Amino acid sequence: MPARSLLGPMISSGKVIKLFYDISSPYSWLAFEVLCRYKNIWNVELKLKPAYLAGVMYGSGNQPPVLNPSKLLYMTSDLTLLSQYFGVPMYRPSKLIKKDSVIPMRFVTAVAEKEKDGDDLVEKVSRELWKRMWSTHQDIVQPASLTEVGIKAGFSANEVDDILILAKSQQIKDRLTSITNEALKYKCFGLPFIVVQVDGKAGVFFGSDRFELMAYFLGEKWFGPHPT
Amino acid sequence: MPARSLLGPMISSGKVIKLFYDISSPYSWLAFEVLCRYKNIWNVELKLKPAYLAGVMYGSGNQPPVLNPSKLLYMTSDLTLLSQYFGVPMYRPSKLIKKDSVIPMRFVTAVAEKEKDGDDLVEKVSRELWKRMWSTHQDIVQPASLTEVGIKAGFSANEVDDILILAKSQQIKDRLTSITNEALKYKCFGLPFIVVQVDGKAGVFFGSDRFELMAYFLGEKWFGPHPT
Repeated sequence: MPARSLLGPMISSGKVIKLFYDISSPYSWLAFEVLCRYKNIWNVELKLKPAYLAGVMYGSGNQPPVLNPSKLLYMTSDLTLLSQYFGVPMYRPSKLIKKDSVIPMRFVTAVAEKEKDGDDLVEKVSRELWKRMWSTHQDIVQPASLTEVGIKAGFSANEVDDILILAKSQQIKDRLTSITNEALKYKCFGLPFIVVQVDGKAGVFFGSDRFELMAYFLGEKWFGPHPT
Repeated sequence: MPARSLLGPMISSGKVIKLFYDISSPYSWLAFEVLCRYKNIWNVELKLKPAYLAGVMYGSGNQPPVLNPSKLLYMTSDLTLLSQYFGVPMYRPSKLIKKDSVIPMRFVTAVAEKEKDGDDLVEKVSRELWKRMWSTHQDIVQPASLTEVGIKAGFSANEVDDILILAKSQQIKDRLTSITNEALKYKCFGLPFIVVQVDGKAGVFFGSDRFELMAYFLGEKWFGPHPT
């Protein structure tokens, strides 16, 4: 696209990272924040892919790690240390209570549907939901809670009302299912699941512990979780 | 211990890393090589703890990841990339055939029993077994195979014969069970499982993807998988 390449900022590096995530997954939050920090450093197009964790687990025949008492215990200490090291403000991640995330994830999906250009609002809404779930331990399913999330992310009250209605539509239910199925096509078995496309090859990375390896795959550098 | 501290090399930093591993676990090999590279850099006492993976999985109620087709597929690409990046010569890790490791792990345990001071020989024998299993895809259960491993690690033919006899004894069976149980007491649910003790606190790290976090926990630096 020579015409586009003259425009400078529109030049595409061709490097794409798709982040499949669910706000009920604390490891997804870590991956989300790190990739938001690195997208410009690595010059990649970051595509946020809000998906449905329960659908991924069911579709891949995998069991949630929290069902195993030893894994649950491990996750508690692991997330406590990771949240400190990554600078992602989780508070008492030991409260790994299983909550169905279909309502907040449909809300995020409706935001994605409304947002035609880029995903700044999807980013903001997702972060607010993670904060409520993992920092302040507030509700994430009631309309009043989602309204608060939407307003914090920069929507007007009227816009949030529209999003809440849209979130209940068949169109949005189908869109969330479709993105979840897209993840499953990559043989995803949990979230976060990260697909990296570079130089005509694609690599898949599960979890929030493969950033150094991802940098190697991209031919880029890893400077730790605080690059700037 | 002031008398000891005058001896220089005997000064202990008080930092201990226990690595619970099984040679049937390719991720254990990665962790083993990285910790062998870092033990002097981080000034830690590395204690090799040959354990029995099947016992860990059974004791923790966890399922081997290779039983899930999506996870198995992921491990193949993950291990291929990790082995390149870590410089650990795995060849076709896609051949993740389930092999019971009780015979080679009893052999390693017998070497540990014979080796009174340190674990240089345990290190060498373990590495040879990993090479056979993951690089050259050679047998690891027949006496002739284990003899070859022992000789490559520096034992005489007679010494290896003694070790082969010892490996079948109740004493060694019990010792392997005991180390496996020690891992389970730390709520281990898979291998490698790494216990880091520093400044009166202990941290546990599962897998071969927590070295950067481990360095943070230790107050040390992570220089990537090739520190020198």
